[in-house]
This record gives sequence, structure tokens and C-alpha cells, in this order.
Amino acid sequence: MVAKLPEEEHPKQAFGWAARDESGVLSPFDFSRRAIGEKDVCFKVLYCGMCHSDLHMVKNEWGTSTYPLVPGHEIVGVVTEVGSKVEKFKVGDKVGVGTIVGSCHSCHNCTNNLENYCAETILTYGAKYYDGTITYGGYSDIMVADEHFIIRIPDTLPLDSTAPLLCAGITVSYGSEICQGYGVKVTVISTSPSKKQEAVEHLGADSFFSRDQDQMKAAMGTMDGIIDTVSAMHPLAPLIGLLKTNGKLVLVGAPEKPLELAAFPLIMGRKMVGSSGTGGMKETQEMINFAAKHNITADVEVIPIEYVNIAMERMLKADVRYRFVIDIGNTIKSTY
Amino acid sequence: MVAKLPEEEHPKQAFGWAARDESGVLSPFDFSRRAIGEKDVCFKVLYCGMCHSDLHMVKNEWGTSTYPLVPGHEIVGVVTEVGSKVEKFKVGDKVGVGTIVGSCHSCHNCTNNLENYCAETILTYGAKYYDGTITYGGYSDIMVADEHFIIRIPDTLPLDSTAPLLCAGITVSYGSEICQGYGVKVTVISTSPSKKQEAVEHLGADSFFSRDQDQMKAAMGTMDGIIDTVSAMHPLAPLIGLLKTNGKLVLVGAPEKPLELAAFPLIMGRKMVGSSGTGGMKETQEMINFAAKHNITADVEVIPIEYVNIAMERMLKADVRYRFVIDIGNTIKSTY
Repeated sequence: MVAKLPEEEHPKQAFGWAARDESGVLSPFDFSRRAIGEKDVCFKVLYCGMCHSDLHMVKNEWGTSTYPLVPGHEIVGVVTEVGSKVEKFKVGDKVGVGTIVGSCHSCHNCTNNLENYCAETILTYGAKYYDGTITYGGYSDIMVADEHFIIRIPDTLPLDSTAPLLCAGITVSYGSEICQGYGVKVTVISTSPSKKQEAVEHLGADSFFSRDQDQMKAAMGTMDGIIDTVSAMHPLAPLIGLLKTNGKLVLVGAPEKPLELAAFPLIMGRKMVGSSGTGGMKETQEMINFAAKHNITADVEVIPIEYVNIAMERMLKADVRYRFVIDIGNTIKSTY
Repeated sequence: MVAKLPEEEHPKQAFGWAARDESGVLSPFDFSRRAIGEKDVCFKVLYCGMCHSDLHMVKNEWGTSTYPLVPGHEIVGVVTEVGSKVEKFKVGDKVGVGTIVGSCHSCHNCTNNLENYCAETILTYGAKYYDGTITYGGYSDIMVADEHFIIRIPDTLPLDSTAPLLCAGITVSYGSEICQGYGVKVTVISTSPSKKQEAVEHLGADSFFSRDQDQMKAAMGTMDGIIDTVSAMHPLAPLIGLLKTNGKLVLVGAPEKPLELAAFPLIMGRKMVGSSGTGGMKETQEMINFAAKHNITADVEVIPIEYVNIAMERMLKADVRYRFVIDIGNTIKSTY
């Protein structure tokens, strides 16, 4: 059997931007999405957040990418079509899709609302779907997904600044939960001393310090928990040194190579280094509902799709406050 | 001021075996111990366990050693003299000293019975004591320590096989506590398939598997917690792979270089890698009392002091079942 072209695999024409090789450069791409099944929801994509994972994936830095690759797993939009057995959504609803679009529904993780840790989880892009076709992400005009993996976005939330909650938000949310078990005073640690005013006045942190030696030394042994959002290679020992006895360092970035972990800094204080990846569907919906209730959204820089390659470069340099969101609805132009 | 020779620093003549340089070779060594202070206990050393830390330390593999270095922090013996304000011990009592002989007594860790995590903790050997002299360990004929750091050994416990409990025992004890929070089925994982019968029949493990690829693969995602006792360099990813969601890997060995820790194996299951070092005085005494009540001791090979350099070599090759204990009382021969 000859493999079909991406635009001929399925009946629904779709259009997005894809990376074609490890250069990671994105360019316009015609493909197709499946006709909706009984439990599927189709929605018009309006905004899609850019995650640091997208940058790793377009360049195949984790060694798992297949091309063409349409990134994007912080996807929001409006429902245009629902399958005959869809129960939770109707045409016109505001919805979103995060990092996963499939799981086994029967394992210990799935039955405990932790679909994100199911061994058969299907990622939103670059993964093999049940029908053998490759999943494509939200840098595209339409999205089709099983309603189980669709999140309802309450009407009061602005779609652009809500998009990043679907990956970044839920990921840090679990980390925060761990840390808040100990206390709720938040300190922002940054390589850029210039971010102090912004962290304290705008983001509402209780305190701030930069990663220079003197400030790190003064803060040794003072933290109950640290959420480490750094996606680049970096030393863990100085961060572990900041922890109190029994403290926990939670990695939510995923550098492309293993980090160095010495046993002594952990031994000297019964410390732990852990990690967690996004969240299950139930906790993601709860996090979004919580965000709506307390009017929490991300600080975003909204960009047109034509700017995406420059945005990738800026993201690599950490030159963004704090997430790029692509205005898919107004700027993506289909060629069909 | 001219530094005094070790044998002239203090009034009590002592004799042990010391490493003189990074070759790690031990040889007879004259030194001295302090006269007992009000709260001090002096005891005749009868047995001293050999810990893998001793091997790291005699060769300066952690970069912190000073020479001459008298190792040994699994020390047991009989009290010969007590200070005027000692409350808990009297001449003739069986006692032991583990990894620490001093701490600040006032920090958060000390006031929570976690002296082992005090920032000013004084290690049993190779550390600077309050008077500026260097501490010497239990490969020696007598020991002097503050009663706070002395453990009572119940009469029913044999001294030789109890010695290793003072470091190895309390270290693994905390790891076990973590794991037993989840369940009590114990699996032994070893590089040597030949240890299966021994692990199951003699040590009482529920199951056993060797670290070959097939058995490791079959056991993926089945463990709630793992106590990793390996002191040599080794890959963590296969062990992390054995853990269930939320599983914990507790390192109790301390390899001389940092291990590689990739974020993904942790992310894919909200897992943690932690560590802990020995225990506080209260929990160490409780562990010893528990061991006495349930008749738990270590499997040991008792050796004469003259065999110590060969034993170090065998320990490096993991050729010991399961701990060497030096018969100090019968084999060390003072030269004074």
C-alpha cells in the first residue's frame, strides 16, 4: 500500500505551519483531519500558545520527532461540529486541547484521572493516532479530538491569555500544589536581576533574588520547595542547596540532555528531586475553572503566524514575557 | 604555635589504623583522645563495621579527606569511664557511636531530632572537633564522645553483627520507612543472578530479579519505591523506569561523581529521586531498640584488623556478604 499524502489521508482539509526537518523552520503546510467520530469534537482554532517543548520538538532535540511536524498543544477555539454521541459540548462552545488527545482509559493511571501518565497516552502532535496517522498540533486552522480530551473554557476567560494554561498552567499548577503543602510564600529566582520589580509588583511574588553567588549563598537552606521551569541545561546542586531539610525540587522543564545529580546535596537534608508532566483531564478542567473564578490568565505576547520563526528564536533566548500566543484565527491563511 | 603530633594533643593514649595518603592503605597509628569532659563517655572499642564510605574516605574520593585518617563510624564497645554530668550511661554499659559526634543543638534540625542534617554536624572521623583537633573513627582501641551521640546497645544484641546497624542500618531504615508507606512487599534487585536463592530463602525477600535487560523490562512500572544502595557510578534511568506513577527512588549510596538524571523519566510518572543520610540520635536509638525486640542484626564477616586492606579491596568488588566487621577488641595491638 502506498502511503497517502497528509492532505489526502482524511476528508477534512486543514492548513497549518509545519517544520520539515531538524532546522526547525516552520512553513505553510496543507494536511487533513479525520471526519468526526461519534465522540469527536471539531473546533476552529483561534489561538495557540507556544511552549518550549515546541522548540525542542521542531528541532528534534528529544530525538522523537517525525516530519512534517505541526506543533502546538495549548490550543483554544470555538466548536464547529460534534459527533452523535458527544455529551459535553455543542457548536459554539469555547474549548481547548492541551498536551494529549488519547489514552487507554483502563489502566491504573487512567482510572485515577491521571491520563497524562498512561503508558499509551497519545500526544497532541507528532504521535501515532489509533488509525495509524500522525497527530498534528494547534499551529493550524482546525482541530478534531475525542471529547474526553477537550477542556471547556468558561466564557469569562479571554481565549488568548488562557491558551498557555493548557500546558504551562497545569504543569506549574501541580508543582505549586506540592510547594503550597508547606507554605505559600513565593520567591522568584531569576538570572536577570532586572526582573525584580516586575516579579514583585506585577506578578505578585513575595520576594525575588537573582542567581548571583552572593544572593544564592544568603538563601541557602531557606526554601521548602522549588519549581524549576528552566528548559535549558543547568546545574541542580545550587538549587538543591537552597532547600531546607526534606525540601523538594520539582523540574518542569525538560532539558535535552541529562542533568548532573550528585548524591551528597540530597543526602545532606533528605531532599528530593522530582518532576511532573502536565495533568489529567479532570485536574486540568479544575485548574481552568479555578483560573476563571479568580480571573487568572497568563501574561502573553500575541503574534501573527508569520512571526512564528522569529518567536522561536526569541524563546530560545528567553526573550519573552512570558508566553507567545499565536493569533491563529486572524492570521493563518489557508491555501485551499 | 607549633602543631602537636596526634599522639601528644590529648592525654589519653590511643591506637588505631590510619590511611596516610590517597593510596588508602591503612597501617598502625599512634594518636590520642581527649580526657573526658562532664558529658563525655569513654568506651573500649570491641567491634567496628566497615562502611563503603570508609573506602571513599581513605582514598579521598569525595575530596574532603585529611590524613592521617582513622576511619570507622559503626563503632560498638563497653563503657570504661563517664564524665561527672553523664546521665544515661555507666561503666560496663554496651554502647555504640554512628556517623556523627557533634551538632549545634539549637537549629531547626537539631531541635527536631535530625542532628544528622544540622549544618554544623561533626562527623565521627576526619572532621574538626570543637577544640580544633581532628576526629578519629573506630578502627581504634578507645573512643570518647558526648553522651548525646552515644547509642545504648541492648544486652540481647550481639555486638559484632549490631555494629553495621549504626550507619547502614539506620540509613536503609529511613528508606524502608518511605517505601513501606506504600506497601511491604520487598523485591531484591541485584547484578548477580546467583544471589536469588540467598535473597529469598535467607534474607526473606518476597521476590528477586537480576539487572538483566529482560527482567528489568518485565518489571517496568511495578515498584512503589526503590532503595538504591549502590555506591558506584550507575545509570538511574532503568531504576526510575521500574517505578509506578508517583514512585520514589531513594539513593543511600554516594558515588564519587554526579549521576546522570534525565527529566523525562521523572516527568512520565510524577516520580522523585531523593536521598537521606543516616538518622538522628532518637531515631537511631529507636531503630536499635526495634532490632533488639525483633532480633534483627546484619549478616557480617568478622575479620582481624590485619585483614583490613584486603577487606577494602574485596568491598570495592562487592565481594562481601554483607558487611565486614573488624574484631577490634581481640586483634588490635597497641604499641604503647
